[in-house]
Amino acid sequence: MPSQIAPQNWIAVDWGTSNVRIWLMDAQNEVLGRRASDQGMAGLPSTRFESVFLELAGDFLSPTGKTEVLVCGMAGAAEGWAEAGYLTVPSPPSAQKPAVIPTKDNRLSVRILPGLKQISPADVMRGEETQIAGIMAGAPDFDGVICMPGTHTKWVQVKSGVVEGFKTFMTGELFALLATSSVLRHVIAKSGWDELGFIAGLKTSHLPTSALFSLRADGLIGDMTPEFARAKLSGHLIGAEIDAAKAFWQDQKLIIVGKNDMARAYAKALKLNNAEAELIDGEALVITGLAHARKWS
Amino acid sequence: MPSQIAPQNWIAVDWGTSNVRIWLMDAQNEVLGRRASDQGMAGLPSTRFESVFLELAGDFLSPTGKTEVLVCGMAGAAEGWAEAGYLTVPSPPSAQKPAVIPTKDNRLSVRILPGLKQISPADVMRGEETQIAGIMAGAPDFDGVICMPGTHTKWVQVKSGVVEGFKTFMTGELFALLATSSVLRHVIAKSGWDELGFIAGLKTSHLPTSALFSLRADGLIGDMTPEFARAKLSGHLIGAEIDAAKAFWQDQKLIIVGKNDMARAYAKALKLNNAEAELIDGEALVITGLAHARKWS
Repeated sequence: MPSQIAPQNWIAVDWGTSNVRIWLMDAQNEVLGRRASDQGMAGLPSTRFESVFLELAGDFLSPTGKTEVLVCGMAGAAEGWAEAGYLTVPSPPSAQKPAVIPTKDNRLSVRILPGLKQISPADVMRGEETQIAGIMAGAPDFDGVICMPGTHTKWVQVKSGVVEGFKTFMTGELFALLATSSVLRHVIAKSGWDELGFIAGLKTSHLPTSALFSLRADGLIGDMTPEFARAKLSGHLIGAEIDAAKAFWQDQKLIIVGKNDMARAYAKALKLNNAEAELIDGEALVITGLAHARKWS
Repeated sequence: MPSQIAPQNWIAVDWGTSNVRIWLMDAQNEVLGRRASDQGMAGLPSTRFESVFLELAGDFLSPTGKTEVLVCGMAGAAEGWAEAGYLTVPSPPSAQKPAVIPTKDNRLSVRILPGLKQISPADVMRGEETQIAGIMAGAPDFDGVICMPGTHTKWVQVKSGVVEGFKTFMTGELFALLATSSVLRHVIAKSGWDELGFIAGLKTSHLPTSALFSLRADGLIGDMTPEFARAKLSGHLIGAEIDAAKAFWQDQKLIIVGKNDMARAYAKALKLNNAEAELIDGEALVITGLAHARKWS
């Protein structure tokens, strides 16, 4: 690795709520090295970000001069590394200079990209806007909707390089809370999946709070497996989201960011509603988005 | 208190998931003394119930002979003091002999009332059936619906002394999880209430997962108070429940069990839907229900 370190290298960072991912980039935006940890923004006081970054990627720094570090994600929240503000939609996903962050270590030149906010209905994102910029870099004329499954799933309306509006669903966080911290934890498998359970969950009503307790009761008096229950809970929650997000996906060109199990579950639920989506890997999009933001700034 | 202890006294117990309440009763079913603690079933291994009971209410026992202890609630669950089974609806709320529980202390004669189960859609209750029996004791001809707000709110269809069916909503548990363990904890007051927030919450769509994240965003970019946010979250969840439970409350004679803030919030939400409900204190109902079950058994 040290042989590859050159003054023109830079470092791309996606610092989310629960994870941080770091890439050493060369001047042609090829990835030279990667680091990742679960030291997400949620568990870190502001004062710890710089040292965590140096512990993870100190050897990515240039031996001479400053190394440019461009960050997206929750590190730019008020409780993060430093507040990086928001752009207000309608807006390109990254049209402004990133915030310059003071550091103790003078080998660092750190900037954090702003998030996006929507005034009404009130909504915010941090990190996803960089993946959107990554999509736009490859498809500047994309006119459609981007679905970004995660802890807080985003549905984003995009037209001609501009984010027109978006809506966030707490589906992923609800799933995690219900599966691990509610009375349903007694009947829900920690991992595993039964596709029939997912489809059964999708079929129920748009409101999950009574369907949810049925999972518990079925576990007590029926013979449902924990894997079926897990997939059914996911079906209830994703089904309710798909139902409520209809205005976003109906008759729209549709991209889902991610190729993991969660992204595939969204694709499946949409397909059962006769909506086809293209799945794109999220990591490549973050890197592309950061590289493009770097050019603009 | 000791002067009042007589061989014909008995002890009524409502042992729920998060609390236990104990009443010393005389032969005429007057309450002679009360004990309560937060040592609910959720935190207790089966082997600890007897000693917790004795710590709390050992001085309620008769100095001579056995004292009768009649228990309802989650103490009768498989993970509770001892499994007390279920009656299957349609059924009177307490038509069968309670389960006799062996004890180490031979001054005790403990029995636990069965819960109610519904095969399809699968549902269960433990404890509420005794409050229902309490209502029936005072109104044997009641034909209508009983709404029982709580961690797991129950809507119960009753006719001529028989529970015909019921539906459980996890609204209370969802509220607690979201207010204290989700990203919303940053914007939601630990206590306090703004009635305008509650009404604003009731007005939104039946699906809360996107409305929920709006609370977070409003807290970040708007000027919503934490008390408004708390009441609005409650409005979203109770509103969604009222919406989904319409078949239960529309054109029905309606009783709400409880006179606390949560019960009043349900009454308010129903009133805004032109449904009037009578509020009845829950503690008196448990005691009446246990006293009646004692006679039947």
